[in-house]
Amino acid sequence: MADVNRRIVLAARPEGAPRETDFRLEQGPIPRPGPGQFLIRNLYLSLDPYQRGRMNPSWRYGRGLEIGDTMIGGTVGEVIESNHPAYRKGEIVEGLLGWQEYALHDGLGERANYGLGLTRIDPARGPLSTALGVNGMPGETAYFSIIEAARPKPGDTVVVTGAAGAVGSLAGQIAKLFGARVVGLAGSDAKVDYLVNELGFDVGINYKTAPDLMQAIRAACPDRIDVYYDNVGGPIADMMFRWLNRHSRIVIVGRIAQYNDAKMRTMPDVFSQIMLARASVIGFVVYDYDHRTEEARNRMARWVKEGKIRYAETIAKGIERAPEAFLSMLTGGNTGKQLVQLYPPP
Amino acid sequence: MADVNRRIVLAARPEGAPRETDFRLEQGPIPRPGPGQFLIRNLYLSLDPYQRGRMNPSWRYGRGLEIGDTMIGGTVGEVIESNHPAYRKGEIVEGLLGWQEYALHDGLGERANYGLGLTRIDPARGPLSTALGVNGMPGETAYFSIIEAARPKPGDTVVVTGAAGAVGSLAGQIAKLFGARVVGLAGSDAKVDYLVNELGFDVGINYKTAPDLMQAIRAACPDRIDVYYDNVGGPIADMMFRWLNRHSRIVIVGRIAQYNDAKMRTMPDVFSQIMLARASVIGFVVYDYDHRTEEARNRMARWVKEGKIRYAETIAKGIERAPEAFLSMLTGGNTGKQLVQLYPPP
Repeated sequence: MADVNRRIVLAARPEGAPRETDFRLEQGPIPRPGPGQFLIRNLYLSLDPYQRGRMNPSWRYGRGLEIGDTMIGGTVGEVIESNHPAYRKGEIVEGLLGWQEYALHDGLGERANYGLGLTRIDPARGPLSTALGVNGMPGETAYFSIIEAARPKPGDTVVVTGAAGAVGSLAGQIAKLFGARVVGLAGSDAKVDYLVNELGFDVGINYKTAPDLMQAIRAACPDRIDVYYDNVGGPIADMMFRWLNRHSRIVIVGRIAQYNDAKMRTMPDVFSQIMLARASVIGFVVYDYDHRTEEARNRMARWVKEGKIRYAETIAKGIERAPEAFLSMLTGGNTGKQLVQLYPPP
Repeated sequence: MADVNRRIVLAARPEGAPRETDFRLEQGPIPRPGPGQFLIRNLYLSLDPYQRGRMNPSWRYGRGLEIGDTMIGGTVGEVIESNHPAYRKGEIVEGLLGWQEYALHDGLGERANYGLGLTRIDPARGPLSTALGVNGMPGETAYFSIIEAARPKPGDTVVVTGAAGAVGSLAGQIAKLFGARVVGLAGSDAKVDYLVNELGFDVGINYKTAPDLMQAIRAACPDRIDVYYDNVGGPIADMMFRWLNRHSRIVIVGRIAQYNDAKMRTMPDVFSQIMLARASVIGFVVYDYDHRTEEARNRMARWVKEGKIRYAETIAKGIERAPEAFLSMLTGGNTGKQLVQLYPPP
């Protein structure tokens, strides 16, 4: 065990796209657990688009991080020292412990990713890293957004953007399980190949190289779009409204293309198109399904074990690589879940 | 009976807001019914925002009117001569017979306002003019959009734009029947007075004179907006997205503020707001409820008779006044349903 705790703090507020200089590696002593506390060594750190928003002075529901604060992030870690009766050394827990190697906790709080609480990991569900991906928050997001908001019917055409990402790749596969025809947009030929040949998507489109993206979407969706699963926002999302089917659903799950925007973007007024298509736009935030976490995690783990859902991970090693990996994830460098491994799992 | 049929034709395609010179009064012989046909004298003509769209070369689902075509419009008329076994002289029918005094029909088609068919009017439902308003398509629009799309719950705050118009005035009152708190936006102090003191809206806002409209909306909705009933579109609609409650519904019923736009309007990208509010935007077109027309008309007629729903009509007299009345309606000159009376009802 190293004798320092290394962490990444917010060094400067990004204007637009973050840069590595917006982060700083700091070292300090490993904290000692006081009465009722326990010490966690983080094994994996989850890098997620929402973390970009917290780098701003404020976000929708509260303050952002202060300069000097440890970056926010979900973690899976091992209890290595405990003065708490309910947490034993060697237990594996998931929590929102930030971009750092070690953290204290007092066991209070109920929920893992979305609050200050901890959740014990059930190692039977899969490798520990999956608690931050397919068996964690991204899996829950994909599961509930598809079954509760998108609700694909057999034969529906479902278009997924960010399709090779942590959430999009799972959402598309779940839609396939419901009998939908799934079209995925991703940013490289390798990702498109992965979507079609590994994950079973019906069509993949490289949005960066398609000579006429609108035409490519029309060609991929001869019966128009029944579900648009919006992971990215921006001009690509705008296009989908020109090709909606009657009674289609547009599920707004993420807007990664816009998280760097300082001002609100302007877009074409698509509301007449929504009206004439009798479409529904549904805003989705996974926190609303906290009470059904176990359902989602059990279902996703079972689908993975049955070979019905596949997942990928892009893993950087070492806390010092977290900023670089984060910037890469924000620009689509990852396939599947972007993680940082801080220590090898036991 | 006059010996000519007077009608209003499309004389020129408007660029932006239509002008009276875009219309022309023409006269021709009153057509004679052939075998299986009957002749209708139109008593009332309905002026509706959708008619603006048909003046363009194309609209979403087909061709627009040609220059020289009779303007499209719903009518209530009396059968005055018949060679059809099922339609007797003196019967009152509703159909899409256009901006003209007389029309032939062969009785084919099932549906009144939305196709080429006719519907017999049940005079017990109310004055004949109401078949084009509270007991007709605007009433159906308000009824189904509230009960099936907006779904207000007791205590919900419902904001209605175009609140003194044919649809908005009814929608707000129906929302009140469901226990909602209803805030209406209209374009004059007289209309605001009408909303609050005649129709029982909780708050009325004159959007033309409010010094800070966003502030007025916030003040009128201290618990934010649960339902935004969008009759108008444009910048006022955009504002509502800044004040949505969690799980709110935005029902897109009409976009009268944009019907003159030659190009698609740009607007702020409100989709992040939709996502974070977990809101749903629902496109609504009344045609989808054709199979439930009787339900809506019976319910609306009963509510009117019980004094639970009030309605207003703004009636111009004479087909030659139709263009002027239409332009007035498009700019908010009407309170309630805008009609043209062509002949006094029998």
